[in-house]
Amino acid sequence: MTMAPEAPRIVIIGAGFGGLAAAAGLANSGLPVTVIDKTNYNLFVPLLYQVATAELAPSDIAEPIRKILHRHPNIDVLLAEVTAIDTTNRMVSLRGGKIIPYDRLIIGTGSQYNYFGHDRWATVAPGLKTIEDARRIRSRLLMTFELAEMTDDAERQAALMTTIIVGGGPTGVELAGSIAELARFTLARDFRHVRPELAKIILVEAAPRLLGGFHPRLSDYAERRLKKLGVTVLLGQKVEDLRANGAMIVGQFMPAGTLIWAAGVRASPAADWLGIPTDGSGRIPVNADLSVKGLDSVYALGDTALCLDANGVPLPALGQVAKQQGMYLGRALGRHLRDGRPMRPFRFRNRGNAGIIGRNAAFFDFDRWRLTGFLAWILWALVHVWGLVGFEKRTLVTMQWLWRYVSYQRGSRLITHQDAPPEALGADAAPVSQHRVKDTRA
Amino acid sequence: MTMAPEAPRIVIIGAGFGGLAAAAGLANSGLPVTVIDKTNYNLFVPLLYQVATAELAPSDIAEPIRKILHRHPNIDVLLAEVTAIDTTNRMVSLRGGKIIPYDRLIIGTGSQYNYFGHDRWATVAPGLKTIEDARRIRSRLLMTFELAEMTDDAERQAALMTTIIVGGGPTGVELAGSIAELARFTLARDFRHVRPELAKIILVEAAPRLLGGFHPRLSDYAERRLKKLGVTVLLGQKVEDLRANGAMIVGQFMPAGTLIWAAGVRASPAADWLGIPTDGSGRIPVNADLSVKGLDSVYALGDTALCLDANGVPLPALGQVAKQQGMYLGRALGRHLRDGRPMRPFRFRNRGNAGIIGRNAAFFDFDRWRLTGFLAWILWALVHVWGLVGFEKRTLVTMQWLWRYVSYQRGSRLITHQDAPPEALGADAAPVSQHRVKDTRA
Repeated sequence: MTMAPEAPRIVIIGAGFGGLAAAAGLANSGLPVTVIDKTNYNLFVPLLYQVATAELAPSDIAEPIRKILHRHPNIDVLLAEVTAIDTTNRMVSLRGGKIIPYDRLIIGTGSQYNYFGHDRWATVAPGLKTIEDARRIRSRLLMTFELAEMTDDAERQAALMTTIIVGGGPTGVELAGSIAELARFTLARDFRHVRPELAKIILVEAAPRLLGGFHPRLSDYAERRLKKLGVTVLLGQKVEDLRANGAMIVGQFMPAGTLIWAAGVRASPAADWLGIPTDGSGRIPVNADLSVKGLDSVYALGDTALCLDANGVPLPALGQVAKQQGMYLGRALGRHLRDGRPMRPFRFRNRGNAGIIGRNAAFFDFDRWRLTGFLAWILWALVHVWGLVGFEKRTLVTMQWLWRYVSYQRGSRLITHQDAPPEALGADAAPVSQHRVKDTRA
Repeated sequence: MTMAPEAPRIVIIGAGFGGLAAAAGLANSGLPVTVIDKTNYNLFVPLLYQVATAELAPSDIAEPIRKILHRHPNIDVLLAEVTAIDTTNRMVSLRGGKIIPYDRLIIGTGSQYNYFGHDRWATVAPGLKTIEDARRIRSRLLMTFELAEMTDDAERQAALMTTIIVGGGPTGVELAGSIAELARFTLARDFRHVRPELAKIILVEAAPRLLGGFHPRLSDYAERRLKKLGVTVLLGQKVEDLRANGAMIVGQFMPAGTLIWAAGVRASPAADWLGIPTDGSGRIPVNADLSVKGLDSVYALGDTALCLDANGVPLPALGQVAKQQGMYLGRALGRHLRDGRPMRPFRFRNRGNAGIIGRNAAFFDFDRWRLTGFLAWILWALVHVWGLVGFEKRTLVTMQWLWRYVSYQRGSRLITHQDAPPEALGADAAPVSQHRVKDTRA
């Protein structure tokens, strides 16, 4: 390293959209930067649902952080888990005992699913935030059809082939559409004793409409398109209990083979490290320059931060917010530390918010106008391919999407048993042992 | 199903090269066929080493068995584990209690690694037979470099960046070459505190030469090319012990971060189901028509079978043997059962045996001539792409290989912690908790 020892060291925790954008903004600053993440890859979360529904492989949407940043000699990357932050002495502690001193600290650790106090639900209805989550959902989903094929009990077959998705936001809508197409098109011809195209997909939303954060016209559009795909949309209905074999919804028990949680997120518990109060969703209140209120030299961004816009409304938990904040913070902090230039306040520019339902059906919500249907679907694909890191991933994903479109096939239909032990699906339904007898194929 | 109830039912256990070829041979027979496999995919094992070394994703070489066979209405597929076979009453028992009757039974359950009685070694030096094995090796390998980057102890860095591969057959040679190129080219620029290109790869073989089953000239070629890549080749040296942190080789302890077992296989324990004696490698002795000696209506093929050639020499455990046996058995059995035609004996035709060391370096051993170097490398790529199932996989793998060739990058560098808990690498070396804190990114 060629840095003078007195150059202020910037530590970034979390290499998601926000953290990586901040690192990129500091790439040419000449300042020493350390990026710490619990995983060795940056995950393109908007396409994670496609891993869960067997359309893409995990590696298609995960790029090594080191590879992304390797051109910048001032940036150090550490695969490590943060255990504590000492804001007085400006030190980050890592599991294993290593200590990383900082002059400026940026926290972008994202969000996690919020089960609103029902922690037990997490074990029966996984959310969709990590590669492991996606693999678990994929394995479970595919396994229910395998188990249905094995049983002669028609009632059990129907229950296994039912998927309940809790939460009608973009993730819930995208999952419902993709699972419906998986069952109706991809799996339809592959079974002999069950008809996957009759699989039931139930999308439950407590609010009176889908896509609460979008224009009501888009809610209608999404509902109409999902129903066309055979999805059952339950609006204004609250989930009262989730069990291993189904959900209790408004006093009625609905048996299901797969349950997925897509209802509400809360910030990662980064505030615990700082020992500061948060809002109700665990977010860290920040000033207009993204500095954490009441702390010195600590910044927060993305889903972890409670950042208010000009009207005093919190910015939503969106990738584009995190990305813009990261770009702003990296550049502004670089200029400030090097040249002493004051940091202007962050201003969010809404670039439009999108989602996809299925073939030829997507939606965009720009501030003043909206777009749906085939054109929106093309635009959605372009925007998401562009969002991926690097030429190889862009090419591979484009090719696979083209192939899905013409063939109705999906390329990543692996059931990995460690992710979906059949025991999880009920003892009577366990034809395959979880006990992993390695190296024999039978 | 339109089959008459009296049509003889053929049950195939194992959907590897042999089992799938047998199913394909029976596809147009009109006879009812049931294929049983423990996984839902057919794995293209010859490229599994590329999953272990981050070149390909698991789904690139795994195709759903259902999808492969879905065009044939007479073939049923079951994802299930066999627990017992009753050869008297002709029934296969599955875990979960289901029973599948058969008139003819084909067993192609492959092979597993043979630790020659040292079962404890399996936990520290995984073999390479399943997707899970490959993911575990990949995660572990990549994790050692991450841990080396984190430590300031030079001795520990060197130990972590050492890989010991036991066994100098094709798999050992391919792994050694690929890991050497991973370290020297792909990872070289990504680290700040260690130099991955100095990583030590040690290939240990007890015999006096590599590639025992090949022509000695190819052994020399492989050794020369590996040494050029910086691999340490130890010949005629026996591994005396394998521990979590290294190997004891001829009285000397060599510390290592990654140990991989590629020394010798034995047949899957299918003979236990049948209660019959096997040869020393667990293989089931079969007659010239692949029927199991001493049993009625049971056949075995591939790595599971002990099949002698015209000179009384056992056929080797190779994909092409299993494939040819499956094709033969499916067709011959179909004709025999439908038309009463006698089954002619199986004859193996050697189509050549190949392996790869790295960029521009592969080898082919045809019976009378050999091929090495660039041409062999092109041929190797063509043969292996062709061996993959389906247009999509062939295109995706070709594209990725082209991209690897020009960029020196690898597309699947994910560390999945459930596959490589840092605890496995020694307590002092655990910066990341195995305890999977879901949904936070830090």
